[in-house]
Amino acid sequence: MEKAQSGAEALVRSLISGGVTTCFANPGTSEMHFVAALDRIPGIRCIPGLQENTVTGMADGYFRVLGRPAATLLHCGPGLANGIANLHNARRAESGVVNITGDHALAHVKYDSPLTSDIAALAGASSDWLRISSSADEIGADAAHAISQAGAGVGHGRVATLVLPADVSWGEGGREAPAGAAAPQPLNPPDAGRIDSAVTALRSGEPCVIVLGTAALTVASQPLAAAISDATGAPLKASGMVAVQPRGRGRLDIAPVPYPVDLALAALEPFTRVITIGCPMPTAFFLYPGKPSLVTRPDASHIALAGRDEDCQAGLEALAAARDAEPAPLPVPPVTPFAQPEGAITAEGFAETVCGLIPENAIVVNEALTLGTGFPARAGRTAPCDWLHITGGAIGGGIPVATGAAVAARGCRVITLQADGSAAYTMQALWTQAREGLDCLTLILNNRSYAILVGEYAKVGAEPGPTAMNMLSLDRPGIDWVGLAASLGVAGEAVMTLGTLRGAMQGALGRKGPYLIDVRFA
Amino acid sequence: MEKAQSGAEALVRSLISGGVTTCFANPGTSEMHFVAALDRIPGIRCIPGLQENTVTGMADGYFRVLGRPAATLLHCGPGLANGIANLHNARRAESGVVNITGDHALAHVKYDSPLTSDIAALAGASSDWLRISSSADEIGADAAHAISQAGAGVGHGRVATLVLPADVSWGEGGREAPAGAAAPQPLNPPDAGRIDSAVTALRSGEPCVIVLGTAALTVASQPLAAAISDATGAPLKASGMVAVQPRGRGRLDIAPVPYPVDLALAALEPFTRVITIGCPMPTAFFLYPGKPSLVTRPDASHIALAGRDEDCQAGLEALAAARDAEPAPLPVPPVTPFAQPEGAITAEGFAETVCGLIPENAIVVNEALTLGTGFPARAGRTAPCDWLHITGGAIGGGIPVATGAAVAARGCRVITLQADGSAAYTMQALWTQAREGLDCLTLILNNRSYAILVGEYAKVGAEPGPTAMNMLSLDRPGIDWVGLAASLGVAGEAVMTLGTLRGAMQGALGRKGPYLIDVRFA
Repeated sequence: MEKAQSGAEALVRSLISGGVTTCFANPGTSEMHFVAALDRIPGIRCIPGLQENTVTGMADGYFRVLGRPAATLLHCGPGLANGIANLHNARRAESGVVNITGDHALAHVKYDSPLTSDIAALAGASSDWLRISSSADEIGADAAHAISQAGAGVGHGRVATLVLPADVSWGEGGREAPAGAAAPQPLNPPDAGRIDSAVTALRSGEPCVIVLGTAALTVASQPLAAAISDATGAPLKASGMVAVQPRGRGRLDIAPVPYPVDLALAALEPFTRVITIGCPMPTAFFLYPGKPSLVTRPDASHIALAGRDEDCQAGLEALAAARDAEPAPLPVPPVTPFAQPEGAITAEGFAETVCGLIPENAIVVNEALTLGTGFPARAGRTAPCDWLHITGGAIGGGIPVATGAAVAARGCRVITLQADGSAAYTMQALWTQAREGLDCLTLILNNRSYAILVGEYAKVGAEPGPTAMNMLSLDRPGIDWVGLAASLGVAGEAVMTLGTLRGAMQGALGRKGPYLIDVRFA
Repeated sequence: MEKAQSGAEALVRSLISGGVTTCFANPGTSEMHFVAALDRIPGIRCIPGLQENTVTGMADGYFRVLGRPAATLLHCGPGLANGIANLHNARRAESGVVNITGDHALAHVKYDSPLTSDIAALAGASSDWLRISSSADEIGADAAHAISQAGAGVGHGRVATLVLPADVSWGEGGREAPAGAAAPQPLNPPDAGRIDSAVTALRSGEPCVIVLGTAALTVASQPLAAAISDATGAPLKASGMVAVQPRGRGRLDIAPVPYPVDLALAALEPFTRVITIGCPMPTAFFLYPGKPSLVTRPDASHIALAGRDEDCQAGLEALAAARDAEPAPLPVPPVTPFAQPEGAITAEGFAETVCGLIPENAIVVNEALTLGTGFPARAGRTAPCDWLHITGGAIGGGIPVATGAAVAARGCRVITLQADGSAAYTMQALWTQAREGLDCLTLILNNRSYAILVGEYAKVGAEPGPTAMNMLSLDRPGIDWVGLAASLGVAGEAVMTLGTLRGAMQGALGRKGPYLIDVRFA
């Protein structure tokens, strides 16, 4: 005999029994019964964010580290909208999120009160799965369904949005989800025909390339991918949308398909067969006049070996078996110390300095953009670590993703390579780092401009004039990142040289809690 | 014979010829041809924002002051999404915005590159009018259509979203809009039958109330409304969604329908006839268990005299004529000085202090929320000024709306009554205030909590426990608002007493440029 409970209580209990034990939250009035239930029923750690795009970005970072979803708590359509940009990145990362959005009581919607919005359209456009719960009786099962849809395992997640009307929350007759209802769907085996096509392509004598997504780049997958490449001669590339990339000594040292379209075209020009595993076909990020949308050759054939719902590891195993490729532990190169450069801060000197100091098992969140060009040549020689890339192109992911990653990975150091213009979108996440005492080191890559857009402007065929530069520069006033961090509870310092950067990083990595270094590029 | 031009050039020229001379901007790669055209063709003042919700809020504030639309410039679906919350408020304010969102080239969308999103759904859910432009040939006419739809006059605007695909922007064959195509649609006269109904209601002997929206509360409308009220005995109330409310000596001193549902029910309980002019029927902001959605009596009849597309002034004139009510200039009460209270900062003392210092013709942006309760009793005695309220309940409107209002109202002082929790959503707008040197005084009403939610929690029937308070408090760490403002280029100071508040305000009002006072409530 079940105890009578509200919808909100059934929801909390169903989340807990489904394994969702963290909730990143920015609640409002319509969520108060749910907040009260979280208060009464222990088992979920609630972590507030000052703005919703920090909340959704945190949930993305959390999944990338643990491979299981956190919940969010957002308030009505406008609150959801504030979090859509980082939900977009989470979807591109194939991160699982149980995205709970409170809304008006169902009976109230038709009165179009001020905060009423087209939440079905907003949630539909930003989610892989959506349910607007209709009764306290069903909310438990709805939550289990959402958890199941959000999925498990990096590269296998979805954004599952559960809209929680206030009257469903306060309604009596709440029922918990039945045991097991929240289990993620098992992965499908990769399609046998596509495995055959890939094996045929690798045997064809035609030049082949293998592009790997998140689920094909795990520590467990990398030896298989390396063995296949060794056995077939087909080089490996990382997708441009990898959510988590294990790198450093003893991991695959492979470059992503480049972001600049001309470099991407050049990188893929040799190949008439393209096998993708756990990622989409490489495309140009943007289309440019006179350039193609696909960065593979027009005559290249494409074999999608395994997608999000399929077992990439099994796909790699099948390929390896077909080619008698024996996976072996990846060789661990000897430690070759990084230099200790001095002088003005350049992209090369910055990367050399940072790579020399990345601790073992660190998480590196990469929103470096234009100032990150020194890393690809060096990332293979660092201590073993995980790189979390911004996958969907919605800038402002870095600090929130780092915050959520640090919540999930207690004890691991998180280092964020954070372009300054992008940092300005979600600076509020620093406050959550301070509140939770997270070991996050944020390096602001500060060039006081939207440098990536200055470069894009140049492709239009002219130098930016005063009107354009007014929209592309971040001086007048320059943001005082150390002061800003301090105002949100995060200590920090500014550095103007590589030597002081090294000292500041060493100091920061030796202390607990968040820290920010404003790295002033030359 | 027209000179050959790109779509972007035709768009810029069509905006200028349509009277759109300000563009609040946060551009990205797909907008670079448009940015280049803005560079080449003088006539549009471009004002950058660090995050899109500041951009859309600025456009809302601009329209509320000038009664004509500015353009925005946003980047793809995620950039649009970041600005939706303040577009929501703008729609509830019936503010006109020409919301230009760049997107991928039309030919590129099908490749689903990383930044591709369901922009039609996102824009459709956040706009009154939407067009995804399809060719350089048509973009000029599309822009004129958008300007026409955005409308003119406070209370008569719309959010008109024009999606600008990159290839439409760079495409040749751009044509400017024909002259006059951007003119707003003329307002319709109010429906004669509804005027008759209103006249009948006012003559019925039944207790009537008249609820006024933005377009019925202008300086020109207020004497008419007062005359009708005097002639009929029907009291006046302001809608809870008024975008601009002229207040102070010589203006109507009327209260809005209260936000708390019990107070709203009590305020409207006497009336069996409700006439709305330029606003919707009053509703409860949220539904609560056991309470109604409408805050008027269940047996009240409703007459909607004039809506957004109708001439509210003509409606008032018709009502006045039918009742032989002669509008006269509103009486200007003698100046009664405000007290100069000392001691700890309370809601009453704060309002007394601020009201005594509001300069003539100031713009007061009101996102005071729980700490603003001292103003209704005093706002009738201040110098004449305009109050801009947050209309749609999406918090975080205050600082951006103030910024846009200051851009539009050069020379007028803008004072923002800004709750601290709400300020945290769009703190980035302070940077634009610094960059543009705007005369904005931001008063942070600092109680270090989401106090409105603590109150809402209490309605659930319990005191918040530790888990709830962790989501509702803003201490640990408290935000250092003075440091935060300084980091974004805005000077300021913190005050702990009413006396120092008064001195700080006097100092701030005597200097040019933005300033922030962190008002620490007791």
